[in-house]
Amino acid sequence: MTAGYQIDDASLDQLDAERALYGPFTQAIRELVDAAIRTTASEDDVRRAQAEVEAVTERLRAPGLTGPYGVRFRQDGHSRAWGNAVVGLRNAVAPPLVITADERGVHSEFHLGAAYEGPPGSVHGGVLSLVLDQMLGQAAGAGGRPGMTATLTLTYRRRTPLGDLSCRAWIERVEDHKTWARGELSGPEGVTVEAEGLFILPRWARERLGEGGEPSPRFFE
Amino acid sequence: MTAGYQIDDASLDQLDAERALYGPFTQAIRELVDAAIRTTASEDDVRRAQAEVEAVTERLRAPGLTGPYGVRFRQDGHSRAWGNAVVGLRNAVAPPLVITADERGVHSEFHLGAAYEGPPGSVHGGVLSLVLDQMLGQAAGAGGRPGMTATLTLTYRRRTPLGDLSCRAWIERVEDHKTWARGELSGPEGVTVEAEGLFILPRWARERLGEGGEPSPRFFE
Repeated sequence: MTAGYQIDDASLDQLDAERALYGPFTQAIRELVDAAIRTTASEDDVRRAQAEVEAVTERLRAPGLTGPYGVRFRQDGHSRAWGNAVVGLRNAVAPPLVITADERGVHSEFHLGAAYEGPPGSVHGGVLSLVLDQMLGQAAGAGGRPGMTATLTLTYRRRTPLGDLSCRAWIERVEDHKTWARGELSGPEGVTVEAEGLFILPRWARERLGEGGEPSPRFFE
Repeated sequence: MTAGYQIDDASLDQLDAERALYGPFTQAIRELVDAAIRTTASEDDVRRAQAEVEAVTERLRAPGLTGPYGVRFRQDGHSRAWGNAVVGLRNAVAPPLVITADERGVHSEFHLGAAYEGPPGSVHGGVLSLVLDQMLGQAAGAGGRPGMTATLTLTYRRRTPLGDLSCRAWIERVEDHKTWARGELSGPEGVTVEAEGLFILPRWARERLGEGGEPSPRFFE
């Protein structure tokens, strides 16, 4: 495998324990991010909050930090993209999306609050493209056609309000190592954004396929 | 003005004070987000950190929360998009970008760390589209052609490594209330992503223009 993708021998029990530890911790930070935008606390209270956050960060850093999380794999191919900016269990920037594959592609229901705002009360257009890039890439992967984004085109039909949203994506067509995927993101009043993307399997992965190797469908998520 | 855009009578001194308070506070949270992804602290230390973060959040929430930040204006047109997912001073999800206008458009130098990861060691393709959407929109606004994103097309030329990056964007052409903007994002080895977007001035703003009103160029940032 190429550099950056790590294979380890973590047991499933160990992964369950890590999930139970880091999931709620990261969720607590997401709630802090939201409260920091919307708080009406006094100046003194904000300063005190800052000092406490800094103290927590210092303690988390004390034993040393690893690099970025990367994508880690078990020997059986089970992958963890826990640092990922959209789906990462350990990344407070990620909403995080929980994406489910079905016979038609992938879908997800999620909530975007104050931290994802662009125009007042609306989701940032770029956040919508962030979500759709991930969804289309996972649709390609779930269909056994993993790849890196080559092009992505977004068409914004109407405003997307902050709140409960959903998204689905599917493979539109395939040709050699190219996969075209489509998707749409919806708010309470229907589809707000449509996306089309081209995903390409990198050369090193194609060479691996040529050697009879099988890149994991979840390899590029 | 339309709902969601608030005009207030904040003094410049008051805004400086808010900037000095919330800027470092939000930066402290960004560092917590990064440390939470990369920490090697013990389970006990992570649990303790979680309890402390939850206590801070509870105190920030106690005096009440406002809605999402929205975009706030002074009477003189000075705007604050402090909740914005890309440039927001009070939003820990935002890197945040500091975007400067020049005679050719807009540009920004910024750093994207572990919280913006997609493929191992690389910036998430969707994060790149998030940055470019904001940059193209601000290029349109800086050129006196504010609008909402109608379409956005990204072409990914090569991998974008996490780290120090730059981006620039400019207006390509205009036609009635439509503005086409282009931009490119670069890493240490040159341009990694190109973008083209169409931005359209919404009808309510055009009607306001027809009445002789002048929507702020920074209105849609």
